Amino acid sequence: MNNTAFEQKAKQIKMFLTDVDGVMTDGTLSFFTDQTGTAREIKRFESLDGMGLLFLKYCGISTGIISKGNSPTLEFWAKALGMDVLYYNISAKTRALEHVQQTRGILPQEIAFVGDDLIDLGVLKKVGLPLSVPNGVPEAQQAALYVTQKTGGRGAVRELAEKILKARGQWQQVVQDVESGVFQNPQGPLAVVRGL
Amino acid sequence: MNNTAFEQKAKQIKMFLTDVDGVMTDGTLSFFTDQTGTAREIKRFESLDGMGLLFLKYCGISTGIISKGNSPTLEFWAKALGMDVLYYNISAKTRALEHVQQTRGILPQEIAFVGDDLIDLGVLKKVGLPLSVPNGVPEAQQAALYVTQKTGGRGAVRELAEKILKARGQWQQVVQDVESGVFQNPQGPLAVVRGL
Amino acid sequence: MNNTAFEQKAKQIKMFLTDVDGVMTDGTLSFFTDQTGTAREIKRFESLDGMGLLFLKYCGISTGIISKGNSPTLEFWAKALGMDVLYYNISAKTRALEHVQQTRGILPQEIAFVGDDLIDLGVLKKVGLPLSVPNGVPEAQQAALYVTQKTGGRGAVRELAEKILKARGQWQQVVQDVESGVFQNPQGPLAVVRGL
Amino acid sequence: MNNTAFEQKAKQIKMFLTDVDGVMTDGTLSFFTDQTGTAREIKRFESLDGMGLLFLKYCGISTGIISKGNSPTLEFWAKALGMDVLYYNISAKTRALEHVQQTRGILPQEIAFVGDDLIDLGVLKKVGLPLSVPNGVPEAQQAALYVTQKTGGRGAVRELAEKILKARGQWQQVVQDVESGVFQNPQGPLAVVRGL
Repeated sequence: MNNTAFEQKAKQIKMFLTDVDGVMTDGTLSFFTDQTGTAREIKRFESLDGMGLLFLKYCGISTGIISKGNSPTLEFWAKALGMDVLYYNISAKTRALEHVQQTRGILPQEIAFVGDDLIDLGVLKKVGLPLSVPNGVPEAQQAALYVTQKTGGRGAVRELAEKILKARGQWQQVVQDVESGVFQNPQGPLAVVRGL
Repeated sequence: MNNTAFEQKAKQIKMFLTDVDGVMTDGTLSFFTDQTGTAREIKRFESLDGMGLLFLKYCGISTGIISKGNSPTLEFWAKALGMDVLYYNISAKTRALEHVQQTRGILPQEIAFVGDDLIDLGVLKKVGLPLSVPNGVPEAQQAALYVTQKTGGRGAVRELAEKILKARGQWQQVVQDVESGVFQNPQGPLAVVRGL
Repeated sequence: MNNTAFEQKAKQIKMFLTDVDGVMTDGTLSFFTDQTGTAREIKRFESLDGMGLLFLKYCGISTGIISKGNSPTLEFWAKALGMDVLYYNISAKTRALEHVQQTRGILPQEIAFVGDDLIDLGVLKKVGLPLSVPNGVPEAQQAALYVTQKTGGRGAVRELAEKILKARGQWQQVVQDVESGVFQNPQGPLAVVRGL
Repeated sequence: MNNTAFEQKAKQIKMFLTDVDGVMTDGTLSFFTDQTGTAREIKRFESLDGMGLLFLKYCGISTGIISKGNSPTLEFWAKALGMDVLYYNISAKTRALEHVQQTRGILPQEIAFVGDDLIDLGVLKKVGLPLSVPNGVPEAQQAALYVTQKTGGRGAVRELAEKILKARGQWQQVVQDVESGVFQNPQGPLAVVRGL
């Protein structure tokens, strides 16, 4: 990794977008069938990651999700983290980038995106700060400017949040505000887009 | 492993069949008892594996499951992955091979099968491309032409899908079609056979 | 471990009893609160372990559970494995040994027991074949004649089943019967004793 | 770690308080959406940890939780462990310390507290025996007098319970009482405080 390049890009981003499975989770997909015969998915996120996303938003960076997945739980979690956008059930993920640009005027080069699989390649190659995880496929890791040390669902997103906020000189303020109790969970509103 | 033997067999297969517990999952079996007193099983699959199975089907290889297990969630997941056949609640797994031959005209030597336990030995010894996982019992690993590096439920099936498609010269097309957004999830129809 | 001592004891046992949490599971205890406000426990067992318990019973060794835990799912799982006895919600585990002797005439020295925590010490010190797991507390490991290489919930019980059946010269028959499809899941009936 | 300092503090504490996510659990947060559209959280605790908390209470040390989290399952688990206080949905955790002092007359210097993230820093810096886990953030580990060898949700709390009781000379009695069957689960009553 080129640390200087990372810092420069981190200072320019206005939005942090992330894939879910393999990045916000360890990539496992758990289901059970309930008494109505419906398959229910269990999504396993990470406490430190959640705080990291809250910290990004608190520092003025918009946050959001682009997922091929289809779980209603994503909406619950995105709201709990005060996220701005949730794109889910998305087969061509670059369309989400176009939607962000059209609706919010944020350009791809002003976006950080974390992905782990082939389906993330299109977006990784378009954004200003492409990121991946050590459990990602080689193609995704190669397309990234930085690959986390922590794995997906086990602190990767928190590591990125800290690294970005440190590059921007905002980390110390976060630590101070959380420790003193000044920090409050940022709120959305969340825009949900399904099935692009 | 003999790489040449693998490649040769991979080019000949028409169908990819797999055990579930220990191959598509890490072998753990989770249950809770709901308010009606019924035990509900939670099955934990893997995102990368799921994509691998979709890639195989997209490239013209039929896919399916042969499981001793009894979970209704298997049907949900097999459908989501556009699989062709689901044999479950099966105690003698070789009967599923006979059923495939009778109903689809696919011969055992045209089939790849992944198994991890003693109950898989019969099928492993009959198919053209027998495969196993590092968490499999020694007997299963010995019966396999190739044992994955990734463990069951943590990428073993994806590793096999990539290895097979690379041997067949189809991998680059997959990467290209997924990245460009041309790739669409293949559809079944799924044939479910229970209790052979 | 003294291999000869293990073999000698293994030949003499008539019953295999085991603790649940930390032995048949990895020791984690998962709960959710359902819409009626009731906490529901999720128990995570292991496929290879389950087969191991079926193999023991198939070879004429009675099987059962002694658990401090209180999950209704234990009854479901014990039945699925064709177990003979389930003692749960038990605070003084040695009482289960006495109950086995009174109701079945099986003496402590004819019993194998696997335990991982202080509460298992009393039983471990009374049975003929005391066993433990590497994730067990030092006191439990010290009281055991053999400590498994695999951890609880990740194959420890399967390892013990194989080791016992090999010592008794019954393993090859199991492999042969499973591979040939002759093997059928043994059935209970299960005797449930709660709250000793 | 300064062992003498730990022992001295351990002898003085009257209460053991702990964070939940990352300390009593491995930090993962699992959710599913049920048929009413409600997100339900699954909390994954540890059997050995639970026994450790019961041992502390049995030896006369009050126990409790201070959590930012919001899961109703915490109340179930705190009751099962015979805890004295449960503070949850707490954004400024030091307020819980003040509440303990006002309602129970226990001073911060008489309290042990285990935390893993920035939100725990305020309490860690106020209590007599500040503790952390290897999966905690650097800031939390630095504020702690002792960092466990076991990770959160995988025995960290049990390790602390043993270490504290050994320092106080109470451990051998626990082992003896559990082994002999004299040990009974201590009971609350539990005081629940939400949303400080």
